[in-house]
Amino acid sequence: METVTIIGLAAGTLTTASFLPQFVKVLKTKETGDLSLFMYVAFVFGIILWLIYGIILNALPIILANAVSLALAFSILILKIKYG
Amino acid sequence: METVTIIGLAAGTLTTASFLPQFVKVLKTKETGDLSLFMYVAFVFGIILWLIYGIILNALPIILANAVSLALAFSILILKIKYG
Repeated sequence: METVTIIGLAAGTLTTASFLPQFVKVLKTKETGDLSLFMYVAFVFGIILWLIYGIILNALPIILANAVSLALAFSILILKIKYG
Repeated sequence: METVTIIGLAAGTLTTASFLPQFVKVLKTKETGDLSLFMYVAFVFGIILWLIYGIILNALPIILANAVSLALAFSILILKIKYG
């Protein structure tokens, strides 16, 4: 595997995994008052575009990272809408 | 400009801009209790790697998006550490 792909996979793992502790925190506390609704709406739409970008470029790290990011960010968005 | 670059720039604009309302919200409320510290630590490190990935690939959307994301996410991290 090329070095650049390894760096991309590490980058994707970190930025994607970063949303996991936020998701778990919201699940536990059921508190989302300090989270910005606009952030998660814009982020989810942006991630969908990154996914399309990665598919066009056939760039594995971009595709993998954004598929998982989308699942996590969308889940946080749903919880934000639920808990306010 | 190629279509893929336009999609990448739109993606980068959305995911990057998404952190702006979160940053403004924290500045206004000075409340960060619901934000995950681990999320912002992992995210900042991941964004640094995405920046390196973009520079190696010479991919303008990845470089621009992650440079601005880094500034915003790092600012939110500092405020999270400050306000707890």
